[in-house]
Amino acid sequence: MIIREKDPLNLEMPFGILDGLTTPNECFYVRCHFPIPQIDIHNWKLRIEGAIERPMEFTFDGLQQFQKRNLMATIECAGNSRVFLAPKVKGVQWELGAVGNAEWTGFLLADILGQVGVRSSAREVVLEGTDSGDISEAPRPTGKVHFARSLPINKAMDDVILACEMNGEPLPASHGFPLRAVVPGWYGMASVKWLRRIIVTENRFQGYYQTVDYAYWQPGQAGPELIPLSRMQVKAVIARPGINEVVPSNDNYVIRGAAWTSGREIAKVEVTTNGGACWNEAKLIGDAGRDVWRLWEFDWKTPHAPGRYTLMARATDSLGHTQPDHRDANRGTYMVNHCLPIEIEVR
Amino acid sequence: MIIREKDPLNLEMPFGILDGLTTPNECFYVRCHFPIPQIDIHNWKLRIEGAIERPMEFTFDGLQQFQKRNLMATIECAGNSRVFLAPKVKGVQWELGAVGNAEWTGFLLADILGQVGVRSSAREVVLEGTDSGDISEAPRPTGKVHFARSLPINKAMDDVILACEMNGEPLPASHGFPLRAVVPGWYGMASVKWLRRIIVTENRFQGYYQTVDYAYWQPGQAGPELIPLSRMQVKAVIARPGINEVVPSNDNYVIRGAAWTSGREIAKVEVTTNGGACWNEAKLIGDAGRDVWRLWEFDWKTPHAPGRYTLMARATDSLGHTQPDHRDANRGTYMVNHCLPIEIEVR
Repeated sequence: MIIREKDPLNLEMPFGILDGLTTPNECFYVRCHFPIPQIDIHNWKLRIEGAIERPMEFTFDGLQQFQKRNLMATIECAGNSRVFLAPKVKGVQWELGAVGNAEWTGFLLADILGQVGVRSSAREVVLEGTDSGDISEAPRPTGKVHFARSLPINKAMDDVILACEMNGEPLPASHGFPLRAVVPGWYGMASVKWLRRIIVTENRFQGYYQTVDYAYWQPGQAGPELIPLSRMQVKAVIARPGINEVVPSNDNYVIRGAAWTSGREIAKVEVTTNGGACWNEAKLIGDAGRDVWRLWEFDWKTPHAPGRYTLMARATDSLGHTQPDHRDANRGTYMVNHCLPIEIEVR
Repeated sequence: MIIREKDPLNLEMPFGILDGLTTPNECFYVRCHFPIPQIDIHNWKLRIEGAIERPMEFTFDGLQQFQKRNLMATIECAGNSRVFLAPKVKGVQWELGAVGNAEWTGFLLADILGQVGVRSSAREVVLEGTDSGDISEAPRPTGKVHFARSLPINKAMDDVILACEMNGEPLPASHGFPLRAVVPGWYGMASVKWLRRIIVTENRFQGYYQTVDYAYWQPGQAGPELIPLSRMQVKAVIARPGINEVVPSNDNYVIRGAAWTSGREIAKVEVTTNGGACWNEAKLIGDAGRDVWRLWEFDWKTPHAPGRYTLMARATDSLGHTQPDHRDANRGTYMVNHCLPIEIEVR
């Protein structure tokens, strides 16, 4: 794993090792905002409160009453590929591998909210992690802040899982042991780890991690407005060859990668090997799954002429959204889904 | 006037010159975020749009159909007294004089909104100024941004004035010519100058100047939340003596100042001349007025012993709110209303 930050721990998968539909737990990127909480499962509780009929606390054993569900979902960090932005922007300098796909096992948030009885006035559900600490950059709240994000009530009552297993193993400490959210189709910041509290609110939550952080500027009727990040944008990424890799000339080379979107399916992946002058359709592998990435490959007849070549991949989803050629500056330091140039050498 | 910034223009009244209930136009603090717009009144228009029945544009002449209203209101910059904060915080380093009181003449926003027909779904009213420019600090939107702030629909339909005169004179260019909002009881950022557009919205407005800027952290059910600044906090300020002024010992000295609050009246001002060891009630001058400051004075028998003395004033309003002794760090760089120490020398 590539260490992007040691403290707090931020690890990236070297994307060239992509191999198969699911990402092994030890290869799945790790995003932490604070030190990893050391949680004793016997003392751990999940509290549910706010605009509900019956505030409750669940132990880990107590949660086992709910039906277990399996859900495959791809999670990408909202800052993945940030290292491609010029001029350089603040934040962890992720390259391509702050994304992974896993099978998650746990409880449907809707089942749990059903038991506590959500009031009709409910508007959002705030997921709060055990992880906490001080924030150093202004504008910032003072004192310890817990990582927390909200979901609209409709999404919370739809397909969100509170997972205790990842690829059939107990959730690793770095991935949110003992319980984390998995919010299909949303960037990773929504899938809050080390859950400790769920608050159903009647107002829009304006916490740090959805205003100053993990938000972007959306043009509105009265000028740009600060909007919390939510759904992943359509994107294809080349796993192999890697940047600056040497590829033999006049040969066959299989360009491989993955592509994902939110709430729909990947319909098409195209590849260019000459910096965008022409695009060729890649072969999609396996079956399509909602909010699950699709692996793809493209058989490249490498050129006779040695030299530098720029490869790019471009995905289109089933609603016809194609990833853009160029960066939209209003997205700030997040949602980097324009076509990313992979420069290689043919020799 | 004290120049706090030359470009954009930010001017402060030296608060020691406080003299009488109204602040002369040339002594009223000036807060600009961008260059002062040069507006030709014959080309100027006010556009009203959004969740209304009849979108309209008014010329300056066209506005004269509405009844003219006079309203006295005190406006304090949300960053007034920031220079007292330690460690130093970002922002214009205002001392005491980013506050003034004037008689404003103009049209009731409610009258104008009545004519365009606000829909029942309306939630807020965004006031947009002609002033615009680039914002340099992240997180920031790209491209030109207009200064804009929203009001809850209830406040917009209550006592907000669109003023074209200030103390009986046409609005000066630096104060928003030809038309500005005056939002009684709210910090100055709400009283948008150089108005050009009013947008009635069905959602909470999340513009730059009420999220990243002019907002503070309020403890909430699910942790601190970013809340737009709104009402002025109860505050008394000493105009005379000034910091480091030399006062004769064993003599009579009249300590003078002003006190204000939001939506109610100043009930009491107390003064300490020994750093808070004991407090004495000051005399309130004139009549109380809603959202209008109250001048006050205190006859001080100055001590025999020469030396440094710390004076402070403390206001209490008619709801019993007293200004705090100490700073609440969650207020960040705004709402500085704790008791401010004025150190002077008795000789």
